[in-house]
Amino acid sequence: MRMFRNDYSEGAAPEILQALIDTNEEQCPGYTEGDVHCEHARALIREACGCPDADVEFCIGGTSTNVIAISGLLRDWEGVICTPIAHIAAHETGAVGATGRTILATQDKDGFVSPDEAERVWRYQTSTGRHMTRPGMVYITDTTEIAGVWTKERFFALCDWADSHKLPVFLDGARLASALTSPANDLTLADIASRCAAFYLGGTKNGMLMGEALVIRNPRLKESFPYVVKERGGLLAKGHLLGVQFERAFMPEKDGSEPLWFRYARTANECAAKLHEGMVALGYESYGGADSNQLFFVVDTNEEEAFQKEAGCETFYTLDDGRKVIRFVTSWATTPTDVDELLAYAKKLRS
Amino acid sequence: MRMFRNDYSEGAAPEILQALIDTNEEQCPGYTEGDVHCEHARALIREACGCPDADVEFCIGGTSTNVIAISGLLRDWEGVICTPIAHIAAHETGAVGATGRTILATQDKDGFVSPDEAERVWRYQTSTGRHMTRPGMVYITDTTEIAGVWTKERFFALCDWADSHKLPVFLDGARLASALTSPANDLTLADIASRCAAFYLGGTKNGMLMGEALVIRNPRLKESFPYVVKERGGLLAKGHLLGVQFERAFMPEKDGSEPLWFRYARTANECAAKLHEGMVALGYESYGGADSNQLFFVVDTNEEEAFQKEAGCETFYTLDDGRKVIRFVTSWATTPTDVDELLAYAKKLRS
Amino acid sequence: MRMFRNDYSEGAAPEILQALIDTNEEQCPGYTEGDVHCEHARALIREACGCPDADVEFCIGGTSTNVIAISGLLRDWEGVICTPIAHIAAHETGAVGATGRTILATQDKDGFVSPDEAERVWRYQTSTGRHMTRPGMVYITDTTEIAGVWTKERFFALCDWADSHKLPVFLDGARLASALTSPANDLTLADIASRCAAFYLGGTKNGMLMGEALVIRNPRLKESFPYVVKERGGLLAKGHLLGVQFERAFMPEKDGSEPLWFRYARTANECAAKLHEGMVALGYESYGGADSNQLFFVVDTNEEEAFQKEAGCETFYTLDDGRKVIRFVTSWATTPTDVDELLAYAKKLRS
Amino acid sequence: MRMFRNDYSEGAAPEILQALIDTNEEQCPGYTEGDVHCEHARALIREACGCPDADVEFCIGGTSTNVIAISGLLRDWEGVICTPIAHIAAHETGAVGATGRTILATQDKDGFVSPDEAERVWRYQTSTGRHMTRPGMVYITDTTEIAGVWTKERFFALCDWADSHKLPVFLDGARLASALTSPANDLTLADIASRCAAFYLGGTKNGMLMGEALVIRNPRLKESFPYVVKERGGLLAKGHLLGVQFERAFMPEKDGSEPLWFRYARTANECAAKLHEGMVALGYESYGGADSNQLFFVVDTNEEEAFQKEAGCETFYTLDDGRKVIRFVTSWATTPTDVDELLAYAKKLRS
Repeated sequence: MRMFRNDYSEGAAPEILQALIDTNEEQCPGYTEGDVHCEHARALIREACGCPDADVEFCIGGTSTNVIAISGLLRDWEGVICTPIAHIAAHETGAVGATGRTILATQDKDGFVSPDEAERVWRYQTSTGRHMTRPGMVYITDTTEIAGVWTKERFFALCDWADSHKLPVFLDGARLASALTSPANDLTLADIASRCAAFYLGGTKNGMLMGEALVIRNPRLKESFPYVVKERGGLLAKGHLLGVQFERAFMPEKDGSEPLWFRYARTANECAAKLHEGMVALGYESYGGADSNQLFFVVDTNEEEAFQKEAGCETFYTLDDGRKVIRFVTSWATTPTDVDELLAYAKKLRS
Repeated sequence: MRMFRNDYSEGAAPEILQALIDTNEEQCPGYTEGDVHCEHARALIREACGCPDADVEFCIGGTSTNVIAISGLLRDWEGVICTPIAHIAAHETGAVGATGRTILATQDKDGFVSPDEAERVWRYQTSTGRHMTRPGMVYITDTTEIAGVWTKERFFALCDWADSHKLPVFLDGARLASALTSPANDLTLADIASRCAAFYLGGTKNGMLMGEALVIRNPRLKESFPYVVKERGGLLAKGHLLGVQFERAFMPEKDGSEPLWFRYARTANECAAKLHEGMVALGYESYGGADSNQLFFVVDTNEEEAFQKEAGCETFYTLDDGRKVIRFVTSWATTPTDVDELLAYAKKLRS
Repeated sequence: MRMFRNDYSEGAAPEILQALIDTNEEQCPGYTEGDVHCEHARALIREACGCPDADVEFCIGGTSTNVIAISGLLRDWEGVICTPIAHIAAHETGAVGATGRTILATQDKDGFVSPDEAERVWRYQTSTGRHMTRPGMVYITDTTEIAGVWTKERFFALCDWADSHKLPVFLDGARLASALTSPANDLTLADIASRCAAFYLGGTKNGMLMGEALVIRNPRLKESFPYVVKERGGLLAKGHLLGVQFERAFMPEKDGSEPLWFRYARTANECAAKLHEGMVALGYESYGGADSNQLFFVVDTNEEEAFQKEAGCETFYTLDDGRKVIRFVTSWATTPTDVDELLAYAKKLRS
Repeated sequence: MRMFRNDYSEGAAPEILQALIDTNEEQCPGYTEGDVHCEHARALIREACGCPDADVEFCIGGTSTNVIAISGLLRDWEGVICTPIAHIAAHETGAVGATGRTILATQDKDGFVSPDEAERVWRYQTSTGRHMTRPGMVYITDTTEIAGVWTKERFFALCDWADSHKLPVFLDGARLASALTSPANDLTLADIASRCAAFYLGGTKNGMLMGEALVIRNPRLKESFPYVVKERGGLLAKGHLLGVQFERAFMPEKDGSEPLWFRYARTANECAAKLHEGMVALGYESYGGADSNQLFFVVDTNEEEAFQKEAGCETFYTLDDGRKVIRFVTSWATTPTDVDELLAYAKKLRS
């Protein structure tokens, strides 16, 4: 049975792999500098974002991109406002902190930074002058760590708040494709580009071998990126590989259908929706809805163990009553048949 | 004409690419943890190094590996002894320094750390107690930045010196395969493993898409690696891709020939030797010999420009008389025909 | 009227100042190395702590001492468990974080790290292996940031927990003298020395111009301290000044009374107790008791403003009903007359 | 006999000590914020520098001030150009490097950064784009580490070069008073203030207990200083002590003589000149002249040992012939009688 452990448990999507094969014998200068694939991918992404003046840079993975963007945006005595479950706060082994920047967590437990909570953090941190770390930016994720999807209303409200304090907003888009193709979404890439100082289009979790495309509008980050990416060990020698993949993912399809970057995520979301519907019908308690490619269900410990073994799921929380919240993740590689198999197994468990 | 710009200007060698294709549909847990390819590659590398107790870890690229190994070996008030042209000193945008560790350069202009110079640095740095950075390790490269190859005698002499001060030795092996298959070499992987606290087997510059295999014997680095690799942004989500490539490169060949990791480098070295012989015969002045896959020649500025345009070479030095030292790099992808074409062009330039 | 703003708003206590005057014309080697006053102070402190093998080092101020001790105890991928109101978490502008170490806050709102909360943090941080910062030590303060005093029972219970995870405990003793002379205290310096990897005896807030005496039992910190104190900018050139002050503060008094370091704090505590009693009698609501030299009272905003103006107090919290929690701090310099004046003013405000 | 070991081996000059005694019972808010002495000292220093718009901030010691100024001026991927014997390069245990900034040493062996050498470093570091650390500022010392004194011509030439690359110049003035009162000097405080982004007026080595006054014209450093000084552990709780001392040192003298800050240094320089003249007359070989309060002499190893024992001198170099270069330092506390005693001893050694 297919594992539903993670969206980075797969290789590359077939079209992406083919692009790598097709270009494998080309020679490129390296470091994402001056090769045709990176340049073409940059142009396609700028166009997709409606942002002709943005810099588009290619990084290897999410943690690395976060470190580069945040340390490039902040002075080293500043801090980044985020939720307590933000990836940079909880799951990156102090990678942002290792650059000296401070994580300033709100109490937003739903994974969305709210203007109210951001304002509370701002006031507290600026209440004693220099004795506390000054907030210097806001970090959000879309989809959030627990699969939430930002709406226009919520996103613009936060950006308005950030603007009022002259704080740049950085959006971690490791799963942005899943967010943008969610039924819950009403944001466009252009909306995001119009308000974020920087954000990235995730590739690793959306059909590529590796790679994130960082879109930069902030002049300070534009200036520092080329140095920071090298200083932080995030510059890929065979950088054209990133260009090749993003070029393919954002290339217009001959049949007029949406670019692969969207299609892969839509496939994942559709399989997730089908899985969610089936699980609920079987009586499983959903935890957080079915907006994107991560699903959470409440199970008992026997079921937890069974699903871990058969579907590779991870456990996220233990509830007060001892039950567990497990996560299934779909991807471009998931098929309706895979979902049916998992549902059949889930049915057997409850029968 | 094929570019001779760099050994990372190529895609993957065909066998490596095929291994990636063959395993593309497998699902793996991620992060180099617990997948069969990483585990198999680890076993193959341990055996090749005669070092059953070593940890073998997979990193993405050279700078990242250096940062991880050095910050894992040193306390943050210690420094690393290396030559003034060491990659970590000159060409990594302060990546090691960004972790707070200090570069302590000798005056070894030939690229080999000598015991005499290391001792001079040691004495100077320990002459005023705590007012100067204490040396905590030694960093060497094989091949060196200017294509030198360490011999047993030279290597053991340095290791003896380092042992006498209880300083671990770390070997940057970005081009180690080229060194080990050089006519000038008499070292084995087992020799290196027997004396180095850690070293790595370069993949990026030897036929892989990306990847370096770090062999760790030092207990301190064994303990810290899992955390540091994540903290420094060097942990690849689809980590099994690194395992797949190193597994293929160190797998026994059915025909009994040497593993691909050696063969790729031998091919590069042989093409380099042929190119060197031809250039010298044409009257070009060699600068540094033909021990490995990097060759340096002294040319005038017209020739420099011509070679840059046609062969993508880089300029390394300007001599006092205004002439230039340019570099040609061969790789697994270079063929005798490629060499012939470059030699034909070189001949035309001088005719 | 005397300000009750802070215990570092004063100059030196008269005996300390006199010791500085008496030794002013002596020449010393500098950097706390090899002068008679530092050596004598070290011996006196070792004896006071019943810890003949400890290193005793002199630092300039609290933040600097915390940075030095924590970065000397932790590897740079580790974190320090503390309360959310710990000085290092809230009020030092990210100074500890600037060394790359991570603050791991419990939810202990009373200022005491509890074994239960520490265990919760430990389990959470170690739940995903290397993807989260590993706890490497525990940081406590005595008195706590909100004037609490550790008891033997509470202290030993936490140390037992820390021992069970092999985590060193570091005690920030900026106001340790006030704690040890509190009616609520049953700990001795020897108790603290017997269980802490390191702790410091605060001087800045207890009658000295500046200075904290760091007592080190942990071998790792013993080794790193001499380098870290310099690397972190915390080594005072005229280091003997620190020795002169601590020598005087721990010197046996001719009349057999307790050393000045205790006497100064006892004076401050006694004035605080008198002030507390008087304020409560006047109907002011105490917030947190009268265990040490910091007192908190709930007042309305008019009273807040009045006390700020006349007594220099600081506001710590705003309660849900809009009332304010203000702080008065006593010191070695406070006299019963000062307290009477403040009480007279407080009476007038409520009349 | 008086030691000639260092200018920080003394306590405070009598007038400075008296000022501390006179103000000891005053209460101040702390942290150099809002007390009359700091404010007055700021005004006096601004006036002395002819720089009404500068920020004047008080730090504790030289290393700490260097760390604060350099990390406040540079982004963390930039480097600082200085000589190879610069204090920040050689003698501060990697304190600047610990902030991630890179030391970029010229080959100026005389202690003065020259435009030619600075230009060479600039060209080298910018030759490969982002692969090397970008220079972001220039660091100089006056007097230099080997007692040299900057002239107008030399200083303006370097500043012109720095301006041409838009690099701010920071002057470490730990011994600036000695430089400005040197017979070799033609610079004024106003000259320095007119061209430096920041510089400091040393107090520790010129009659104070501790303290350096940092004059800031650079807007970026003005903004970051308040945070960086706290983050780097350099903010003194009883900050008014620094204000009291600098206030006294720059206060107009009633008899119209120069302020103490200059007078103390002039005394030291005059004693040094007398000592130099006497030593040379006795046949001792001078090494570097007598421009300021540090003197160097070439002696044999017996003399070295004798002077170390009797005069506390330090050894700086060992010459190729085995002879030693020792250093004598005079200070505000040195008297002509002290010099005569040392000369008598020196005479005896050679008789």
